[in-house]
Amino acid sequence: MSKPKVFEKPTGVKDYLPEVVSKLRSIESRVLECMEKWGYSQIITPTLEFYDTVGVASSTEDKKMFKLLDQNGRTLVLRPDLTAPIARVVASLMKNDPLPIRLSYHANVYRAFEEEAGRESEFFQTGAELVGDASPEGDAEVIALAIASLQAAGVERFKLALGHMGFLNGLFDQTLPGRTEEREALKTCLLNRDHVGYKQLLRRLNLDDATLRELEGILRLRGGEEICRQAESLASGELARESIRHLCEIYEVLKAYGVEQYVLIDLTMLGDFSYYTGVTFEGYAANLGFPVVSGGRYDNLLQQFGRPAPATGFALKTTRILEAARDMSVPKRRILVLYDVAHRRDALAFAGTLRLKPGVSVETRCVSPDTNPERVSGRERYQEVYSYLGHQQPCGRDA
Amino acid sequence: MSKPKVFEKPTGVKDYLPEVVSKLRSIESRVLECMEKWGYSQIITPTLEFYDTVGVASSTEDKKMFKLLDQNGRTLVLRPDLTAPIARVVASLMKNDPLPIRLSYHANVYRAFEEEAGRESEFFQTGAELVGDASPEGDAEVIALAIASLQAAGVERFKLALGHMGFLNGLFDQTLPGRTEEREALKTCLLNRDHVGYKQLLRRLNLDDATLRELEGILRLRGGEEICRQAESLASGELARESIRHLCEIYEVLKAYGVEQYVLIDLTMLGDFSYYTGVTFEGYAANLGFPVVSGGRYDNLLQQFGRPAPATGFALKTTRILEAARDMSVPKRRILVLYDVAHRRDALAFAGTLRLKPGVSVETRCVSPDTNPERVSGRERYQEVYSYLGHQQPCGRDA
Repeated sequence: MSKPKVFEKPTGVKDYLPEVVSKLRSIESRVLECMEKWGYSQIITPTLEFYDTVGVASSTEDKKMFKLLDQNGRTLVLRPDLTAPIARVVASLMKNDPLPIRLSYHANVYRAFEEEAGRESEFFQTGAELVGDASPEGDAEVIALAIASLQAAGVERFKLALGHMGFLNGLFDQTLPGRTEEREALKTCLLNRDHVGYKQLLRRLNLDDATLRELEGILRLRGGEEICRQAESLASGELARESIRHLCEIYEVLKAYGVEQYVLIDLTMLGDFSYYTGVTFEGYAANLGFPVVSGGRYDNLLQQFGRPAPATGFALKTTRILEAARDMSVPKRRILVLYDVAHRRDALAFAGTLRLKPGVSVETRCVSPDTNPERVSGRERYQEVYSYLGHQQPCGRDA
Repeated sequence: MSKPKVFEKPTGVKDYLPEVVSKLRSIESRVLECMEKWGYSQIITPTLEFYDTVGVASSTEDKKMFKLLDQNGRTLVLRPDLTAPIARVVASLMKNDPLPIRLSYHANVYRAFEEEAGRESEFFQTGAELVGDASPEGDAEVIALAIASLQAAGVERFKLALGHMGFLNGLFDQTLPGRTEEREALKTCLLNRDHVGYKQLLRRLNLDDATLRELEGILRLRGGEEICRQAESLASGELARESIRHLCEIYEVLKAYGVEQYVLIDLTMLGDFSYYTGVTFEGYAANLGFPVVSGGRYDNLLQQFGRPAPATGFALKTTRILEAARDMSVPKRRILVLYDVAHRRDALAFAGTLRLKPGVSVETRCVSPDTNPERVSGRERYQEVYSYLGHQQPCGRDA
């Protein structure tokens, strides 16, 4: 195998140059500030976690985790998400903090073996977790915060689709008892949004007419508030009915937040995180074919870390949002101060004073006394050039 | 080997809880803003780099790097520093950008096998690199920026010690020609600040009186501006003399910046980074026994990445500065809005309005209509509580 060339970097990782960093950092700070306004405090967890704790609890497939060994031969992973690490912290360092606990984060997460798809091995997520609130109010808060966060990030046109793990699970349990394999095959179709395959599979299952209608009916359960009522009439089992009632209540609270125009109900949607137990949601920005946010309820994860508690949360796909968001970073006014050795002290003092102004970036450059300020290299990069040179009076626009 | 307990995390890594994160983030943003004011633009490079490129170029010992394999069997490292990755970017993605290039960063870096010493495996650095300026003005700019950055971080009392790799190398080359092993042993003594061992070793080397005096004399080369002159008279070889002249010029420029009170010269100091070629510096905060910043000139690193250019830079040890810095983060005013279902819409609208104010963190909680607002759980955590409950008029301080 050939050595990498000096300029190469590993597959799926990126360098972000200054202009992109400005935008990324502006998104990060605006979203975190939004979350803070809603009572979510930021935490930072390590890049490295034990495979046996966070790795196992995470919903990322094993083969997609970067693994390495520590000095004692124990397997470490580069964190595949922040939800499991935060569950660990809530159950350990914060175990005496009363619930509910609201936490936010901005961090990079890792995926191995994504080469083929051209996908990223390292990307940024900005997210929030609400631990200790099982109510529809809690779900709605997190969904409304996801909407506020997308707005804070500068994403202008987007929709959030709401689904419910309990509704689908309940419906399948009720209609296809014992037929685990078929249920999983149907779910896989839904997960891949392969509705044609879903229908073909249903037809092959020799179901009675009522069941067939019920299971085909799922595919029509996408739309606005009316879907809640339609789903209630379709759902025959208790779990499915209870789930849909919970979802309807969430929708009521979202109306109280005044954000129902951003929300649609899509009961064909399965969250792709194995730990989701209740409502799940995904947000799509106009013109982007992949979700910019995803989240949901995970009521069983915390107990794996020894502090049973309901929880719900979401993560913005910050790296993707970079493409979808308006750039709200404020460009700097670039200023160059030229000086010769004889005027060094005055020029550096002047540069220091300029730096006290907001929104400026001030570079200094020592040149020979007979330099022509209009012809210094890179002149075009600066909005203003001041010079302290030779026998001239110090000159330049405000000087 | 036993499995880790669910709450455990790997050796040497940390969780940062909200209060500490506020302080850390405030340091980060203030320092990066300071660097931006000086013309340094932020870049972000990946956590994972090839061992054969950045790993080899970095000054971190091999055994202290976290290594893992990519899908093609090539060795990756978790970045041990940012200087080598930035050199890679300057020589590749930015290869057409004219010099000088000023870049800044805030990132976590990694060290394996630090268990014994209780040291950290992952920590934050905030730094700056000036590429393409070989002049004493360039060195002084970077040192003055390091001082401004420490001030921006809230470190109130500190000193920067300045040394020069060329001075020591020149002196040893001149006085101990061919005696590589002894030279390295002497340097190791200086690196470990073992001045007693240094003198003992010198005595064992059977040197003539003049040479012995010259090499013992190094130990007295610590102090203010006067050290420049003393060192000039001590240095017999050309490299040592040239180095000391460069250092004296840097000191002149630092006086022009008006920061000489933060600087002392310590010619016994060896930068612990193997790629340093010229001036090196370390900053110590009052009452802390370890450096909070270190930096220096590295004129040979860029050519390893195919774009030969002089360069100088530094990194603040941000994680350590957390202990040394005044907390300048602004505490939030925590507000709780209680409501019952009947008042949901009004209460959530009110919370939304409150969130428009600066510096607030507003939580909402749905409770039963007969709740006593003064007795809700966690009441003491909030500076203000508003309630929209039962038959009461909405109440609370501003409501």
